[in-house]
Amino acid sequence: MKKLIPLALLLAVSAEAQELPFPAGYREWIHLTTGLDMSYNPALAMPGHHMFDNVYAEPSAYREFLKTGTWPDKTRVVLEVRMGTTEGSINKAGMYQTGEPMGVEVHMKDAGLQGGWGFFGFGEDKSPARIMPQDAECYTCHRKDGAVDTTFVQFYPTLLPVARAKGTAR
Amino acid sequence: MKKLIPLALLLAVSAEAQELPFPAGYREWIHLTTGLDMSYNPALAMPGHHMFDNVYAEPSAYREFLKTGTWPDKTRVVLEVRMGTTEGSINKAGMYQTGEPMGVEVHMKDAGLQGGWGFFGFGEDKSPARIMPQDAECYTCHRKDGAVDTTFVQFYPTLLPVARAKGTAR
Repeated sequence: MKKLIPLALLLAVSAEAQELPFPAGYREWIHLTTGLDMSYNPALAMPGHHMFDNVYAEPSAYREFLKTGTWPDKTRVVLEVRMGTTEGSINKAGMYQTGEPMGVEVHMKDAGLQGGWGFFGFGEDKSPARIMPQDAECYTCHRKDGAVDTTFVQFYPTLLPVARAKGTAR
Repeated sequence: MKKLIPLALLLAVSAEAQELPFPAGYREWIHLTTGLDMSYNPALAMPGHHMFDNVYAEPSAYREFLKTGTWPDKTRVVLEVRMGTTEGSINKAGMYQTGEPMGVEVHMKDAGLQGGWGFFGFGEDKSPARIMPQDAECYTCHRKDGAVDTTFVQFYPTLLPVARAKGTAR
């Protein structure tokens, strides 16, 4: 009989390597929001370059959030970056998304990680990503300003009312 | 014994009324893309007003598209419009989505409808919507410029390569 590796094991962050597999199938997860050129630094914009940020959560984590106003352990939230462009087909104004992702990052909740959450950035080859070092800017900013449990629920229009109703948004 | 109405009947567009129920749960469907202030008329923009368009397809229809490069009968695609804003929380540049939807429209494939597809626009009360008249602009534009079967797959970055590979994109 063939031995199957339990899904939980495949998804677990190894304590030694702190590596995470690429979140295959995240485009079929729950879409939380999309922003364009968002930045907490007004000077950061690159003229002529536009980036959409698409955010997805695992369906099971999303459903738990709807019930409790916060995320269960092992939650993965994906940030996908795609180029924005104006002219193409019949479009003449505004901006639409085009091409392959320019980046994919995962924010994963794991009680075994320092601070309870880790960030992982994936390259084009989709190979497993090492956890980002604790002094990376993402940790500080998410801890300081994330509305719910280090996540930016203040920018997720379907989850913010849930967090407010459950009293979990700060 | 309680009699249950089959789901297919609940979703069917009635031939007489041509009304469609509100697509409850569409935020858990598959996200196809999000654009900002898109328009085929460069003069249409409203200064100081920004609108994100989120597009979702039913999971079963999406999976069929991945296999065939086109949509099965009864496919529903939702267009949700939300306000875009710049300043809020720590954000200082670009644009994020906020508040309740400003509009929800459904594009439904149905072999029983003239042209094979119908458009339905829902109000805030989420009551069933009557089909939009055939002379509405949406029909002409989607028929003339939609890349696949009257849908704007040219703006859906995960579906366009599928349609190209299957030879269904024009």
